[in-house]
Amino acid sequence: MAKKKAAKKKPAAKKVVKKATKKAAKKAGPIFPVMALIGIGLIGSSIARVARQEKLVGRIQVATRRKETAATARKLKIADDVGTDMAKAVKNADFVVLCTPVGANAEVMATIAPYLKPGAIISDVGSVKQAVIRDIAPRLPKGMHLVPAHPVAGTEHSGPEAGFAELFRGRWCIITPTPETDRAAVAKVAEFWARCGSDVEEMSADHHDKILAITSHLPHLIAYTIVGTATDLEDSIKSEVIKFAAGGFRDFTRIAASDPTMWRDVFLNNREGVLEMLQRLQEDLTVLQRAIRWGEGDKLFDLFTRTRAVRRALIDAKQA
Amino acid sequence: MAKKKAAKKKPAAKKVVKKATKKAAKKAGPIFPVMALIGIGLIGSSIARVARQEKLVGRIQVATRRKETAATARKLKIADDVGTDMAKAVKNADFVVLCTPVGANAEVMATIAPYLKPGAIISDVGSVKQAVIRDIAPRLPKGMHLVPAHPVAGTEHSGPEAGFAELFRGRWCIITPTPETDRAAVAKVAEFWARCGSDVEEMSADHHDKILAITSHLPHLIAYTIVGTATDLEDSIKSEVIKFAAGGFRDFTRIAASDPTMWRDVFLNNREGVLEMLQRLQEDLTVLQRAIRWGEGDKLFDLFTRTRAVRRALIDAKQA
Repeated sequence: MAKKKAAKKKPAAKKVVKKATKKAAKKAGPIFPVMALIGIGLIGSSIARVARQEKLVGRIQVATRRKETAATARKLKIADDVGTDMAKAVKNADFVVLCTPVGANAEVMATIAPYLKPGAIISDVGSVKQAVIRDIAPRLPKGMHLVPAHPVAGTEHSGPEAGFAELFRGRWCIITPTPETDRAAVAKVAEFWARCGSDVEEMSADHHDKILAITSHLPHLIAYTIVGTATDLEDSIKSEVIKFAAGGFRDFTRIAASDPTMWRDVFLNNREGVLEMLQRLQEDLTVLQRAIRWGEGDKLFDLFTRTRAVRRALIDAKQA
Repeated sequence: MAKKKAAKKKPAAKKVVKKATKKAAKKAGPIFPVMALIGIGLIGSSIARVARQEKLVGRIQVATRRKETAATARKLKIADDVGTDMAKAVKNADFVVLCTPVGANAEVMATIAPYLKPGAIISDVGSVKQAVIRDIAPRLPKGMHLVPAHPVAGTEHSGPEAGFAELFRGRWCIITPTPETDRAAVAKVAEFWARCGSDVEEMSADHHDKILAITSHLPHLIAYTIVGTATDLEDSIKSEVIKFAAGGFRDFTRIAASDPTMWRDVFLNNREGVLEMLQRLQEDLTVLQRAIRWGEGDKLFDLFTRTRAVRRALIDAKQA
């Protein structure tokens, strides 16, 4: 019965895009004459590097908010033009990628909208997708195309120096077009990411936000919390927490070292998804807490056996 | 004021042992003529491998509960004698190391006590230490020495095949003697672990259990819970959780793949420590939950900035 059900189930993400883009990836030549990147942190600077290396665009123009960041990016020579003027960066660009924290999207779009080239494709790299569409779509001038994208890749480091061309290789890039999105624009963005080395999948923004809430947002929230809890301990223990971090805590500190602005914006902009998963987690934690208090070893053992199987599934899916 | 306080503070762990053992580590020659290992999983088989490689003992005798495990260990040729008879393994052993899940200690001690060699040193590798003393000390025959130890090392793999000689290299080994413990016995066990490549520290069992509750037990409990929460999701999301695990969840699945029996026993045997830390975590999670619900970005940003600093402290302490 269960087997039958599984066989009937359609995958929510479309494989079509992936196949098409893998084919396209073999074609040479730039996809866009001019690409503009708004923001040049870990993700933006990695896009600049891979786009140049793989000859995905003819020219790269960068605008970033802070002068210091622009100066750093300029020194790295990862783009053809780097400045703080967003209008200048986008005005002749065929492909504009917003690489800012998702909370900045509305303001960025309001600023660049009057200067966008007719027919330009606007994309982003945000870890939430419904909020991106909510903030960008209404500010999009007619004749422009919004193709929201999320390269599921990153490290705990930030800034233009932290980027590298291989960041997206073998990682997922999830594209979440709306029913209105121009399919030719979707295909171009999919090709771009496939040639960055990513496996491209297409799904709805709503579905994306649900999946990422549990696979990414909740783990980050928990890591931040547990590291915070540890730093609130009495002094005599706190110093030793750092010393003896090897037992599991260390993995959490790496996750909890991720960019604060980016993650604040993720939690505020996938509020429903995160709160729903957090509520479930709290319930499950409470059940475990009770099992420990009352010495119910079987309940613990059953859960731990079940979770071990998940790791095997991951290894089978070549995700570990 | 804060600085003065910090300067006055004595470290809870004694550095003395570490220095003494580093010196001792340079001396050659076996520390014990015969070592018995009870249990030959990841930790036991790693001890066998490193003890033989570094010539720390003259002879290695192993007893394990299951015939199949004994057969596997025998095939690996990591010990001089492998069987299921605990009495036989310990009767001429100078150093007996319990490498079983901590919940088995009381029963194992009751079984081996009548056969222990006079003057033998009994040690263990458990991740909790107060419960180990509680379960072993009362069953220890007169003239024997209990030196509880915890090598803070491991992987998510189990069984005799999973072990390797380098597992303990550069990792902590925490020794938690009681005030009654013979100091000569402590020095020998410290030398053993130093020559396994570990940094040896001495502290009270109570202090150990508090530190490990936050650095190891709570992270494992959380990882188990979050992976469990994910596997309880609706089918349409569950299959994609595996697929898109790269965003943070993957790190949790590795931790949550650790040995179920071992971890069940850890939680049941450090109940007070784990429940105390879990309670603090739940409170902190609730505060974050409220901040997300009410859109209080500053609170999130402040925490995330604070936790990022912890990673830096870890890197400075060379623990990352």
